[in-house]
Amino acid sequence: MIFADGKDVAAFVRDIKPVNRQMMAQAQARLDNLTKPQGSLGKLEVLARRISAIQQTIRPDIGHKVILTFAADHGVAAEGVSSVPQEVTRQMVYNFLRGGAGVNVLARHVGAEVWVVDVGVAGDIRADGLRSRKVKAGTDNLAKGPAMQIGDALKALGVGVETAREAIAQGAKILGTGEMGIANTTPSAALFAALLGVEVEEITGRGTGIDDATLRHKIEVIKQGLRVNSKHLTGPLATLAALGGLEIAAICGMILECARSGVPVVVDGFISSAGALVALQLADHAADYCFFSHMSAEQGHRLFFEKMGLEPILDLDMRLGEGTGAALAMGIIEAGVKIINEMATFAEAGVSV
Amino acid sequence: MIFADGKDVAAFVRDIKPVNRQMMAQAQARLDNLTKPQGSLGKLEVLARRISAIQQTIRPDIGHKVILTFAADHGVAAEGVSSVPQEVTRQMVYNFLRGGAGVNVLARHVGAEVWVVDVGVAGDIRADGLRSRKVKAGTDNLAKGPAMQIGDALKALGVGVETAREAIAQGAKILGTGEMGIANTTPSAALFAALLGVEVEEITGRGTGIDDATLRHKIEVIKQGLRVNSKHLTGPLATLAALGGLEIAAICGMILECARSGVPVVVDGFISSAGALVALQLADHAADYCFFSHMSAEQGHRLFFEKMGLEPILDLDMRLGEGTGAALAMGIIEAGVKIINEMATFAEAGVSV
Repeated sequence: MIFADGKDVAAFVRDIKPVNRQMMAQAQARLDNLTKPQGSLGKLEVLARRISAIQQTIRPDIGHKVILTFAADHGVAAEGVSSVPQEVTRQMVYNFLRGGAGVNVLARHVGAEVWVVDVGVAGDIRADGLRSRKVKAGTDNLAKGPAMQIGDALKALGVGVETAREAIAQGAKILGTGEMGIANTTPSAALFAALLGVEVEEITGRGTGIDDATLRHKIEVIKQGLRVNSKHLTGPLATLAALGGLEIAAICGMILECARSGVPVVVDGFISSAGALVALQLADHAADYCFFSHMSAEQGHRLFFEKMGLEPILDLDMRLGEGTGAALAMGIIEAGVKIINEMATFAEAGVSV
Repeated sequence: MIFADGKDVAAFVRDIKPVNRQMMAQAQARLDNLTKPQGSLGKLEVLARRISAIQQTIRPDIGHKVILTFAADHGVAAEGVSSVPQEVTRQMVYNFLRGGAGVNVLARHVGAEVWVVDVGVAGDIRADGLRSRKVKAGTDNLAKGPAMQIGDALKALGVGVETAREAIAQGAKILGTGEMGIANTTPSAALFAALLGVEVEEITGRGTGIDDATLRHKIEVIKQGLRVNSKHLTGPLATLAALGGLEIAAICGMILECARSGVPVVVDGFISSAGALVALQLADHAADYCFFSHMSAEQGHRLFFEKMGLEPILDLDMRLGEGTGAALAMGIIEAGVKIINEMATFAEAGVSV
């Protein structure tokens, strides 16, 4: 077991080091020597130099890409906060494994693998290709008490660490986060509200597409969850346990492991950002390794970026999750990596500076 | 010769038909039946259904992609409006042909070919792979009189039409615009000012990266160009000739040909948008076939989108031109096309609606 208690987590995150700023400057020097006006490739250059700094080379390589899609269910679904039945979590896992979901299509498009991890789906689920690491068959209802006991949250965090470690051991040079879990915008919004100190009304959105009445109900459910769990909200880890989800904890763990191992990690959308927020509150320097893929159409994601002073790569009005945004952003990050590797310098091309 | 006079252009653009809205609805119906909440892939769905409408099929195909990079010089470079010597236009053509420029790297990344067309580079230039269709060795100085006689502008427009036609005949399913021409943000800003009725100060930016004093001078040069050419600014075609560039005219022609042939065309950045603006003023329905790739960091591009009520796909702070933005956006458009082709439906996946 990776984490027996919060002290183990604290020890783990102490190993996360800031990236090498010197290497960032070296990468920019190379970018400035390529046949283009300085800085004219904008964010592609920013991405390339950050990947260079993380990998400690001005010839970075993110050829081997893996998206980890963690699936889990949520007790709070019983409150009727989603328009989609809980059964769909399990059905979608099979869809992922057969390659028919959005994340499969977009991952193939950018040349990434999709690893599907059951970290807490309700009910039995067995299939070839599935990584079965179920901590618990769904969380408890956060509107009535803690979603998870701290021990289960630590176990789910550990699943994220272990799966990331396995992908890295198999050669992955960049990881992407992904998730599936009916009702999981509810724990995500609750986490943002508790950890960022923002209003529930501002951070809560329509998820899969609920109507006005259900949205009002969802807001009330989240407020109730914050009230009944108020004594548990004593820090990022305790808050993650009380309000979060098993897949959200796994995403948090995977981000921490990437940061500790010096591997770039692309954060998907709204729900993945909730996991990332916990990781960033646990470990400042983890942000150096995170690439936020896109601005979700889910209301509240903009507020997360504003509060954190972060900027996503894409803004395509998407709100599907699964890792779809992470996949698309990997394609953009790889474009930047190819720029630094493949463009000719002024000298090579005989172009007047 | 494709266009002997403005009447030929008028006849040509009359053949441009609006896309099939019925097919757009059919494409959306398929998208709504795929295993995701309706509309949750945002702009990817918007892109997919527009490609479907253009190609008249809900199984669209943009596998074969070609970027046309038109190179030409500008008499107005003599006014010192750029920080880069004119010679660089020719040097960069060789860089394109050797595959070392930004557009080459990004085109390879998305699986697109780059065709390099000399439509008006100053000085002799011969090389394997270059399409030599020089109309004139650069435009005249727009600050002193018309940049082009109308006949030369029509010839350059025709080069755009013919090259697009050739790419389409060879199987291209989507085209991207690209350009190279030292000083060409100056004629572009002049065109925007004249055709959109915006202030020169608002639309004029720093191009390759000029300092404040040069920017003030560039603005004065453009104002002078608008004054000395005022009697020629009688319509989009006459304005294109008086203030534009040979590569800008070719881009305009290529967009018109794509629209006439029912082929989607991805518009690169600031300079390509100037060519697109002329095309859109000549032919309303041409907009149905245009995909604006990105918001350039060049000041004024935002104003173009606002005035035209258009929205770019990406916003990555880029300002290189060449077709780099078009290449990246092709990757996003193809993601949308793959979504509509490859995702499982609810029935296929056995997922509860």
